[in-house]
Amino acid sequence: MPTHHELAIEYFRGLQDRICAGVESFDGTAQFREDTWERPGGGGGRSRVIENGTVFEKAGVNFSEVYGEMSAEFAKSLPGSGTSFTATGVSLVFHPRNPFIPTVHANFRFLTKGDAWWFGGGADLTPYYPFREDVVAFHRTWKQVCDHHSKIADHAAMKKECDEYFYLAHRQEARGVGGIFFDYKRGEFDAWFSFVKDCGDAFLNSYGPIVERRRDTPFTAQHREWQEYRRGRYVEFNLIYDRGTIFGLKTNGRVESILMSLPPKVQWRYDFHPEPGSPEAELLDVYLKHRDWCADDGCSTL
Amino acid sequence: MPTHHELAIEYFRGLQDRICAGVESFDGTAQFREDTWERPGGGGGRSRVIENGTVFEKAGVNFSEVYGEMSAEFAKSLPGSGTSFTATGVSLVFHPRNPFIPTVHANFRFLTKGDAWWFGGGADLTPYYPFREDVVAFHRTWKQVCDHHSKIADHAAMKKECDEYFYLAHRQEARGVGGIFFDYKRGEFDAWFSFVKDCGDAFLNSYGPIVERRRDTPFTAQHREWQEYRRGRYVEFNLIYDRGTIFGLKTNGRVESILMSLPPKVQWRYDFHPEPGSPEAELLDVYLKHRDWCADDGCSTL
Repeated sequence: MPTHHELAIEYFRGLQDRICAGVESFDGTAQFREDTWERPGGGGGRSRVIENGTVFEKAGVNFSEVYGEMSAEFAKSLPGSGTSFTATGVSLVFHPRNPFIPTVHANFRFLTKGDAWWFGGGADLTPYYPFREDVVAFHRTWKQVCDHHSKIADHAAMKKECDEYFYLAHRQEARGVGGIFFDYKRGEFDAWFSFVKDCGDAFLNSYGPIVERRRDTPFTAQHREWQEYRRGRYVEFNLIYDRGTIFGLKTNGRVESILMSLPPKVQWRYDFHPEPGSPEAELLDVYLKHRDWCADDGCSTL
Repeated sequence: MPTHHELAIEYFRGLQDRICAGVESFDGTAQFREDTWERPGGGGGRSRVIENGTVFEKAGVNFSEVYGEMSAEFAKSLPGSGTSFTATGVSLVFHPRNPFIPTVHANFRFLTKGDAWWFGGGADLTPYYPFREDVVAFHRTWKQVCDHHSKIADHAAMKKECDEYFYLAHRQEARGVGGIFFDYKRGEFDAWFSFVKDCGDAFLNSYGPIVERRRDTPFTAQHREWQEYRRGRYVEFNLIYDRGTIFGLKTNGRVESILMSLPPKVQWRYDFHPEPGSPEAELLDVYLKHRDWCADDGCSTL
């Protein structure tokens, strides 16, 4: 009988393959470069990256399955006894070239420590020039997955957790339009594994149609400027707040795999504020506010 | 009789004026934009920024003089009794457009808490395409200032502190070629104030001649790519490690003044390594190693 860890590894490895195949087909020309790496303390991973693709300026999909002993200090902050752990999962960030296609992030993972285990993960969208239809459709996909597992997965709670996590406190600003986020999910293994598999399998459906709708939208140098400026917020979030990034960097993880999530081209401007009433201001004033996108008009058929 | 805090304010305010006048004269065309701001808890500051200048793509010089009560938690980490504090200082970062001119950072400050006071500060250089002559001259300037105050200022110790502070542990890489760094300097007020004033007054001499030597060096798009890529390290340092940046962001400081230090245009590339033997590799292999630049050939006349 395979262990829970082995079952999760098998699923996540296959998920990486399917997502990468999907992304290559969206992009049309780009192919992932793959780096396999070993972790000195046990296990390893496969990092796959596209740079300068047709659709994706940068796209990274990491798979890892690691195990070993964690520090007693860090062990205190997690469920389960002792310091022995296993962890496996997939994490991805896609930075499209076209500013009308949003950046997307997703992560799904399974951990064990001592005799405790738990799942965590989520997916969230960061538009530059948002379309209501895209935002609603993204949230609708994740609500459907949750609703299909309504005995264990509370969509409203997972959406709220996502809004709270992807928040830049120093700017009092949401990173994007959210999605879902969950962690420390324990109980019946089969039920949670089934939920996480449905999440993983839903990812391409949540994002692919948005790419298809926006990939041919013409854009100007001004649109790119705004995209590169907003990408600065992505960098600020990942380096200041993101638990996974900071933990990885402070525990000698593979730096290039951890920082694969950073955007390819970024700008910072001093005290920049878009024109009131402009599409750029609409992102801030309408879309970066926490709201129930699934109760929105565009989503009323739910 | 003016207090120590008032004497320091007067000097730092004038220093900001003199440094900004110097930078405007190096640049030739750009003029600083000034924003004055007040701190809700007491005091305020003057932020001055150039964007898209001829020589400086971005240059920020902050002056502040603040006072009030700090949290009991934070107060524990500092000298002196109680929670009442005053702080005044100048901090600056210049990002030149030409990749042959290094980025420079400097900060000089005076703090009081209860009946304790101390000075801190330093200056450090971050080249993209370094010239030995520039690096040696920069270190030589700071050594001369220290040597002039040899009873209190140990250049070798201050250089070592700078090397240790401006270090990206996750990449095991120096941020730049260093300079000097000092903190918690107490004892005879007049002696330390005199040292800090000589440091502040030396800044334009330490950097101006480098700008003059390199400002007309022709550069290509490839040189710019390397500069923008290396600027990513500057962002990583400031957001992950820099105590002032993190403290400011976590205590509701003025975000735009704190993040003025971030470079205007930045790139991240996955697992990028320059060609062995290239000028780009020389930066990493020769210049980003901690070494005694003042004992170097080019500095042997010291």
